[in-house]
Amino acid sequence: MSFDLPLILELTDPPLQQALQHRLDRKTKPLGSLGRMEALALQLGLIQQSPNPALHDPQLLVFAADHGLAARGVSAYPSDVTWQMVENFLSGGAAVSVLARQHGLALTVVDAGVRHDFAPRAGLLRDHKVASGTADAFLQPAMTPAQCAQAVHAGMAVVRGLPGNAVLLGEMGIGNTSSAALLLSRLTGADIAACAGRGTGLDDAGLARKRALLAEVLARHAGAVDPWDAMAAFGGFEIAMLAGAALQAASERRVVVVDGFIAGAALLWASRLVPHLPGYCVWAHRSAEPGHALMMQTLGAEPLLDLGLRLGEGSGAALAWPLIDSSLRLLDGMASFESAGVSDRASP
Amino acid sequence: MSFDLPLILELTDPPLQQALQHRLDRKTKPLGSLGRMEALALQLGLIQQSPNPALHDPQLLVFAADHGLAARGVSAYPSDVTWQMVENFLSGGAAVSVLARQHGLALTVVDAGVRHDFAPRAGLLRDHKVASGTADAFLQPAMTPAQCAQAVHAGMAVVRGLPGNAVLLGEMGIGNTSSAALLLSRLTGADIAACAGRGTGLDDAGLARKRALLAEVLARHAGAVDPWDAMAAFGGFEIAMLAGAALQAASERRVVVVDGFIAGAALLWASRLVPHLPGYCVWAHRSAEPGHALMMQTLGAEPLLDLGLRLGEGSGAALAWPLIDSSLRLLDGMASFESAGVSDRASP
Repeated sequence: MSFDLPLILELTDPPLQQALQHRLDRKTKPLGSLGRMEALALQLGLIQQSPNPALHDPQLLVFAADHGLAARGVSAYPSDVTWQMVENFLSGGAAVSVLARQHGLALTVVDAGVRHDFAPRAGLLRDHKVASGTADAFLQPAMTPAQCAQAVHAGMAVVRGLPGNAVLLGEMGIGNTSSAALLLSRLTGADIAACAGRGTGLDDAGLARKRALLAEVLARHAGAVDPWDAMAAFGGFEIAMLAGAALQAASERRVVVVDGFIAGAALLWASRLVPHLPGYCVWAHRSAEPGHALMMQTLGAEPLLDLGLRLGEGSGAALAWPLIDSSLRLLDGMASFESAGVSDRASP
Repeated sequence: MSFDLPLILELTDPPLQQALQHRLDRKTKPLGSLGRMEALALQLGLIQQSPNPALHDPQLLVFAADHGLAARGVSAYPSDVTWQMVENFLSGGAAVSVLARQHGLALTVVDAGVRHDFAPRAGLLRDHKVASGTADAFLQPAMTPAQCAQAVHAGMAVVRGLPGNAVLLGEMGIGNTSSAALLLSRLTGADIAACAGRGTGLDDAGLARKRALLAEVLARHAGAVDPWDAMAAFGGFEIAMLAGAALQAASERRVVVVDGFIAGAALLWASRLVPHLPGYCVWAHRSAEPGHALMMQTLGAEPLLDLGLRLGEGSGAALAWPLIDSSLRLLDGMASFESAGVSDRASP
């Protein structure tokens, strides 16, 4: 695959890191006592190349698409729920709509390939439909190579025009835990049984059927080992677009807040193309989907929240947002030992 | 000890619980997919005895006091840091000040027994000073029984006049991880080595000294097994006041958001007096202090956050607040399958 990947630099700047660490260490608190908050502030400073990082105009992007494989019963819900939930995002009744309002996150919904004709409309919905759902990966690759590249490009284009310096990435697509599990299995070599879970709520029999079907899909695309071939074989348009969005965001030094299992699969894939990408990511939460732990371990990622979420939509990313915001408010707003006249510990 | 404890009822109301569960289950999401958010919404509904619970005017209370034992070197910081940090809370430069501003939490700082003369002043500081620090528990009980009762009463009085239906409980007091560890050990029977940690940052030698000293303190008050005797022997004024605040808040059906290790010790103690108290509590975060895990296990509590915090001040409670707020915004603001026209899963 010939594709111009954006330039994403390693986050290494020892003098800046030292300056940030010194600021944190002089704050009126025992050394290191704000735990993950301190690590976040440091990461954001390195991303923004600034000892005074600040966040503004956070953008919550929800990419939606349908999956050919869904017709084979890999989900507890029918494919029509994808477009119905897009309408729910737009009218403000979905979980992610509520959370975006709570935290002042600008919500954009992207039609990456929903099997539905949305009438043209102003507002939150952006049309980047590659096709009306992917092809059935049981029979053929889910996408053509051209569609795959188009989707990644579209994700990049969506981010390119946005204000702010933070993107939160979520998705909607009935059947997309299957796509994510297939990608996870192929990219890590892990058995599909360790990668595929109940998704939106399959029962034991449904889960067994899903795993058997996905094992067969993997076998039918045994040659799709290159990341681009794997994405074309197993991916969803929303997953490829999420990957493009993350790549573009990191190249512009925006922080990338990654929701759960499906957004994580997109980032795992993109990290195979651009190894420094994970440095720009905050992993919002530990998903209840069992393959997520393996995914996080592979990425060396430690999610912020662990709330048993398995909804998607970017809901976990939105729930994690105030913590990310807090990390910089603490860095900016806390007094130092000197400025507050507080005694530091006795020198050792 | 003769003390009129407030009435705190068990949170059991099967019809209301069913009504809340039904509302959650009809929201546009897979069953149970919002994990802990759903459990929180349910708990808040039961506390408020309402199928439409709502939060307003959250109050963040920070109780501060000094400890006689601190003179024996159980902390990495000198006792003067207690009053200096109180000044820092009041001038807005502490971590909890920053977080309270971020989330619109009304901050009240209570002088429960700081070894310092604060000039009278308007605003955030309330004077409930029992004494200028506790006595040295190595030599005698930290408080008299009358002081202990006075502190619990004062905590109740602080909450009684407050607006809103949520209190977040934090503390400040150099040496108070020692008090908390002593209470934890005495109330659970666990070895002091499992209860006492590095606090604000003792090194290995400091930790060994702290544990040896606390073991000796426990032995010197071997008879203090009744909860009131244990609090008088080992407690801090801020810890007893935290317990009173929690008891009063729960009796008024306010939700009690409990910060970390020291606030947790106060709640563990109060729960021995009033077994239904933990039902009214949200445990904000898993503290890095090693005894906290044992404390949570004893209380059957599962903290919301796990961020490696060990600061106190109510900082963890403040960080958890947006999640608690989200749980009810989701319950209130999400559309149902019916109202949004979204297809539910096929009936099994």
